[in-house]
Amino acid sequence: MLTNRHQVTIEWGHCDPAGIVYFPNYFSYFDSAANALFLRALGLNKYQMLKTYDLVGIPVVDVGARFIVPSVFGDVVAIESTVVEIKRSSFRMQHRLLRGETRAVEGHETRVWAGRDPADPAKLKGKPIPEEVIAKLKA
Amino acid sequence: MLTNRHQVTIEWGHCDPAGIVYFPNYFSYFDSAANALFLRALGLNKYQMLKTYDLVGIPVVDVGARFIVPSVFGDVVAIESTVVEIKRSSFRMQHRLLRGETRAVEGHETRVWAGRDPADPAKLKGKPIPEEVIAKLKA
Amino acid sequence: MLTNRHQVTIEWGHCDPAGIVYFPNYFSYFDSAANALFLRALGLNKYQMLKTYDLVGIPVVDVGARFIVPSVFGDVVAIESTVVEIKRSSFRMQHRLLRGETRAVEGHETRVWAGRDPADPAKLKGKPIPEEVIAKLKA
Amino acid sequence: MLTNRHQVTIEWGHCDPAGIVYFPNYFSYFDSAANALFLRALGLNKYQMLKTYDLVGIPVVDVGARFIVPSVFGDVVAIESTVVEIKRSSFRMQHRLLRGETRAVEGHETRVWAGRDPADPAKLKGKPIPEEVIAKLKA
Repeated sequence: MLTNRHQVTIEWGHCDPAGIVYFPNYFSYFDSAANALFLRALGLNKYQMLKTYDLVGIPVVDVGARFIVPSVFGDVVAIESTVVEIKRSSFRMQHRLLRGETRAVEGHETRVWAGRDPADPAKLKGKPIPEEVIAKLKA
Repeated sequence: MLTNRHQVTIEWGHCDPAGIVYFPNYFSYFDSAANALFLRALGLNKYQMLKTYDLVGIPVVDVGARFIVPSVFGDVVAIESTVVEIKRSSFRMQHRLLRGETRAVEGHETRVWAGRDPADPAKLKGKPIPEEVIAKLKA
Repeated sequence: MLTNRHQVTIEWGHCDPAGIVYFPNYFSYFDSAANALFLRALGLNKYQMLKTYDLVGIPVVDVGARFIVPSVFGDVVAIESTVVEIKRSSFRMQHRLLRGETRAVEGHETRVWAGRDPADPAKLKGKPIPEEVIAKLKA
Repeated sequence: MLTNRHQVTIEWGHCDPAGIVYFPNYFSYFDSAANALFLRALGLNKYQMLKTYDLVGIPVVDVGARFIVPSVFGDVVAIESTVVEIKRSSFRMQHRLLRGETRAVEGHETRVWAGRDPADPAKLKGKPIPEEVIAKLKA
């Protein structure tokens, strides 16, 4: 499976009064890392990706993370992301955030390839992930 | 164990271009819900709590969530939070976000009762959770 | 003009390593205060308001603020908001954030009553603010 | 005066249900751009800068912005930042966010070079900006 490496600068505004990253922001980093992986795999940024495949989004339905070592503002960290499993209309990603050589955070998420629900346009509904997308993620 | 109910208004700025809550924000809601539980149990807001117990924070070391039903801006949701397990210097919380009668999100987190590391003030270190705090959380 | 008072709890995650509110978050507070004012004036939350008046949003085109006194996590502050000027398709709001009796932040913003541009649905375009909305804001 | 150019990728999570950047996030971008300017001018990231000059932060006391053209997720924009005025313990910055060749947002802010107040360590207090810092910002 394709692994992508995405670099993030930890900003002052991402950190809390303890001086370390406020933990929900790690999920924003992982979300950006997921977008970076798709940009590399498909050659499309998220806007183009949603247009191309007629998606409303790729919402997360399940997520988890372990915070092993804190990071502070000014740090430049790397996130290694992989799609580890692909089902009909969902897929699972893993992320490792590295602070230098140290594994600082580990996370995973399950996302749905989601379009509008034809029965109710206000709702999202899973769609089959196209074969070409699967092929590129497996490359 | 004490269960606290915390109300949140889903704001426009918490939602993404799909019109639903951007998932990292659920962890901010859970964090606020945790603070609200401590305010009720101890009668101290987070600032007062850190001062009183000489803490740097109560950082999360492990977290997970399932997103079952999306919420949209304008919704007023409730979060029910409970401390489900207390160890020497860490504890585990569970959160259920209810949209009306519907269980919309389930989450859990493990947090550390953390002060400055005497050996290195730049680092955090777990401290024993005081008996009076445990008693109030179990009330 | 209608003045609305909106209460905000300053959360840990809104604050930066200096222990005070990270300044962009004041604009989120003001945005929530604007929504609260419309909820009171029109009886509609933002989702209902956009539906009712066929709007894409009420985007800000100009904004400013003075930060006089910092606030810290745990504080419960009040924001007093007023629509101070209404033009054909835009309006100006003022906000005062009060920490106890102290005026802590002052801000203002100009917003557009915006629908889809008929010539290009990907774009926003100002629409005339309905008379009934003006009447309710002036009440 | 030194002008620095800082690149930002507009992320999905920075955008609101109208599909455009939620306006408070522009101030986070400007804050990151300010840090990037100091990194270039002083060779110090914000963590190192606060340590080196014994600062608690460089808090914003006054800010304003005009939002001319919206940006959407997937856009890669550039922010050009300059320190336009330096006083004893405060300075003023200007930012221009460019979307391609288009000036999309203009902003300015006044910041204080702030340490702990010797009379009350819980408070911030302006300190004289060191000559060497002024010289490097003017380079």
